[in-house]
Amino acid sequence: MLSSRLRLTRSLPTAPLRLYRCQHTLPPSIAQLFKTPPPLDGELTVQGYVKSVRSLKKVAFVDLNDGSTSSNLMCVLTPEQAETLKTGQSVSFTGQWVQSKGKEQAYELKIIPGSENVKTIGKVPETYPLQKKLHTLQYLRTLPTLRWRTNYLASVLRFRSFTDSKLHDFFNKEGFFKTNPPIVTSSDCEGAGELFQIESKSILEDSKKPPFFGKNAYLTVSTQLHLEVLCASLGKVWTLSPTFRAEMSDTNRHLAEFWMLEAEIAFVDSVHQLTRFTENMIKHVVKDLVEDKNGAATDLLNGQRSTDDVDQVVEKLTKRWNNLYETRWASVTYLEALQILKDSGKEFKIPLKYEDGLASEHEKWLAGEYFKGPVFVTDYPKEIKPFYMRLNDDNKTVACFDLLVPDVGEIIGGSVREHDGAKLDREIKERGMKREELDWYMSTRENGTMPHGGFGLGFERLVCYLSGVENVRDVIPFPRAHEECEA
Amino acid sequence: MLSSRLRLTRSLPTAPLRLYRCQHTLPPSIAQLFKTPPPLDGELTVQGYVKSVRSLKKVAFVDLNDGSTSSNLMCVLTPEQAETLKTGQSVSFTGQWVQSKGKEQAYELKIIPGSENVKTIGKVPETYPLQKKLHTLQYLRTLPTLRWRTNYLASVLRFRSFTDSKLHDFFNKEGFFKTNPPIVTSSDCEGAGELFQIESKSILEDSKKPPFFGKNAYLTVSTQLHLEVLCASLGKVWTLSPTFRAEMSDTNRHLAEFWMLEAEIAFVDSVHQLTRFTENMIKHVVKDLVEDKNGAATDLLNGQRSTDDVDQVVEKLTKRWNNLYETRWASVTYLEALQILKDSGKEFKIPLKYEDGLASEHEKWLAGEYFKGPVFVTDYPKEIKPFYMRLNDDNKTVACFDLLVPDVGEIIGGSVREHDGAKLDREIKERGMKREELDWYMSTRENGTMPHGGFGLGFERLVCYLSGVENVRDVIPFPRAHEECEA
Repeated sequence: MLSSRLRLTRSLPTAPLRLYRCQHTLPPSIAQLFKTPPPLDGELTVQGYVKSVRSLKKVAFVDLNDGSTSSNLMCVLTPEQAETLKTGQSVSFTGQWVQSKGKEQAYELKIIPGSENVKTIGKVPETYPLQKKLHTLQYLRTLPTLRWRTNYLASVLRFRSFTDSKLHDFFNKEGFFKTNPPIVTSSDCEGAGELFQIESKSILEDSKKPPFFGKNAYLTVSTQLHLEVLCASLGKVWTLSPTFRAEMSDTNRHLAEFWMLEAEIAFVDSVHQLTRFTENMIKHVVKDLVEDKNGAATDLLNGQRSTDDVDQVVEKLTKRWNNLYETRWASVTYLEALQILKDSGKEFKIPLKYEDGLASEHEKWLAGEYFKGPVFVTDYPKEIKPFYMRLNDDNKTVACFDLLVPDVGEIIGGSVREHDGAKLDREIKERGMKREELDWYMSTRENGTMPHGGFGLGFERLVCYLSGVENVRDVIPFPRAHEECEA
Repeated sequence: MLSSRLRLTRSLPTAPLRLYRCQHTLPPSIAQLFKTPPPLDGELTVQGYVKSVRSLKKVAFVDLNDGSTSSNLMCVLTPEQAETLKTGQSVSFTGQWVQSKGKEQAYELKIIPGSENVKTIGKVPETYPLQKKLHTLQYLRTLPTLRWRTNYLASVLRFRSFTDSKLHDFFNKEGFFKTNPPIVTSSDCEGAGELFQIESKSILEDSKKPPFFGKNAYLTVSTQLHLEVLCASLGKVWTLSPTFRAEMSDTNRHLAEFWMLEAEIAFVDSVHQLTRFTENMIKHVVKDLVEDKNGAATDLLNGQRSTDDVDQVVEKLTKRWNNLYETRWASVTYLEALQILKDSGKEFKIPLKYEDGLASEHEKWLAGEYFKGPVFVTDYPKEIKPFYMRLNDDNKTVACFDLLVPDVGEIIGGSVREHDGAKLDREIKERGMKREELDWYMSTRENGTMPHGGFGLGFERLVCYLSGVENVRDVIPFPRAHEECEA
């Protein structure tokens, strides 16, 4: 192979090129410094944000954080050096990396004397709201761009990233392929939720022009139908994709824009292959928490807001993870679930009816009060489920499941799909759906159809459940909901 | 901890529960069988699609594929067993896993005699289009749901999945956090492209209702501005996210919906930290191809369409990967790039002008003909770049870069961001942009601002470049473009 340098010298004898410029690397984050500590007593420059300043007579302490970990780097300065420092400022400190005398951290940064070793990069206004005190999550939501700088919410976003990574891991291990089904779709017939319609802004402003896509276009409410097509090609496929529902409901577990993990698996014919698989999937994430591998659990627990009940929160989460990991998860049929709810003698706000399915309060009671952990509910009545689910031999129920968990309720819904084209055709007709709009989808049934099944997991809900966060708005950076589109 | 079983027995003495049902696992794919072969001469059932049938007098051969690998599983049957088999059918074969006598594969499946061991699950119509012959990619695009079943296009989708995984890997290794900036945005001012506007379908049908989000809402053209907010919180962040541009252009490298990898890094102040980082990022993907780790390279090369020039394609790709991996990539300034283009003496369709930037033909010539590999072009004139880029000391150019590659042209664009609030304010004013719509963004400059930079990578373009696919429509499952929204 020709050396690039050679080629360049040959072709460019005169041009003043510096082709291979000095190439810097990125500065290590505080998390990286803790994980792979630099040599003891060595000098280094660290950048981050001032979390708090404590000045005594002869010495000052600054908690420095750069968002990479919930453990602050303790910096030791002279009181003069700390004089102008304020919470929220971005700073650059030069000091020695030394062993800490305190019990709370292994290392600290001993700033080298002299004003040149303490630089303020970015100031904060007098009114900087994130002072070292407890803010309610509700108040923090009014600061959409600043709230992620709190140790607590930053740890939640890192936890979201950790969860994403572990799921990626799991699907790789299981021989799945990650795919990207379309976000824009021309099909409005699945009925999983209210649709958003889209059109080019400039076409909207000039009504004479035909639609951008040549027809009406919508944002997907679920990628499942397209994923089924891809599963007929690649066998085992998954995606983690934004989905959109124009619902007016204002609850702590609904968003108009949310991320859904969906998977579709060829040659699966039992709903319990799917429940087993999803149990393994979540256990794969939880395993790292139980073992605190790479410190993901520590980072989250450490980031818990310094309230009175922090010990309780830590105990609750640790217990939750252990319980998830160590038990085999319960599984009941819909009928059995109804029986349990009726036998409980508890008065629910929404009465129990076979044909109504389970309301959120029923789901939460089942998982939270009765099973005190996750529970699969399978085989719902056909009438309350979508057209594509496989009919059971009883001709009444379909081979489907929901996974219910304490506090959050439903986090996964899945089913075996009806792969018999004739039966599916009949179902589409009986429900009065437009067959021609589903022609593309039905091609999977007409060309080498095979048993298959899959599921959808509400990613924000899983993150809430595993991190103990109550409102989905606090696990997604910029929540979108009815009348809610800040920043 | 209480055993769940115990709890259940106590609370449910009468209900007919089978709480821990028999739990199946998923059937292994053909790729998994090749990777972790079952015991030799053992019996197993394999499901997949018939790729081709070849019947001789005493024996028949079926190439079986389930989409998990471009290597077919050779199955040996009796001619009677193969009688009704047709290309495209989904089947279930029971046989012995034996060593292959042929040279092309290590193992084959020797079907056990008897009709019960060869089951057709799903039939195909007489007109099933994917017979064993070469189809043009253009023709295959007219089969949006079936085309991914060809060995070639399936290998491209698996390659996309591989690329996604390796990038995930790289960002984990580098201490980045994956985030999900919003897809729906109320800001229409970045100017990276034509916008799509969105509204609830039912609100559109009832014009009296106020907008769903309380204001106009659009699909994001780039997540960068939000990513900058998150970088001010977590330090090093990235995302792989769908982005939308309502462009009418009909080229082989533009889509209305495409996936963009974007990253934003705190405390970076030189454009060459970014070029170095992106070079390392792509090399991390390429390393596995050069070393053929986990067979990703073999799978893609094996899947190349059986044309006359397959050897040429394989040679071209192998050379490309080696070259990418082994060289240090060139980097020139915009001025130097212009000089090279002028000195070439070549007549371009679009004339070279300092104030026009580089056209696609210039970019392709630079990377493809001159550097014969990737080249960074840095420091473009301020006037042809967005408002947020950091001004260089010359007061004329900005600290930005594009990465150009042969065949495809630009695949990455990035820059150091202007972190000085006052300078950025001036820029926004001079460009006549609406400051109030950027208030949320400017909060990053007003509260502990810090030097930072980042980039955006067109994911489909990277996949095209690394896999040798010419049209972005062939690396995304369901392409969306002007007047193009099939299936």
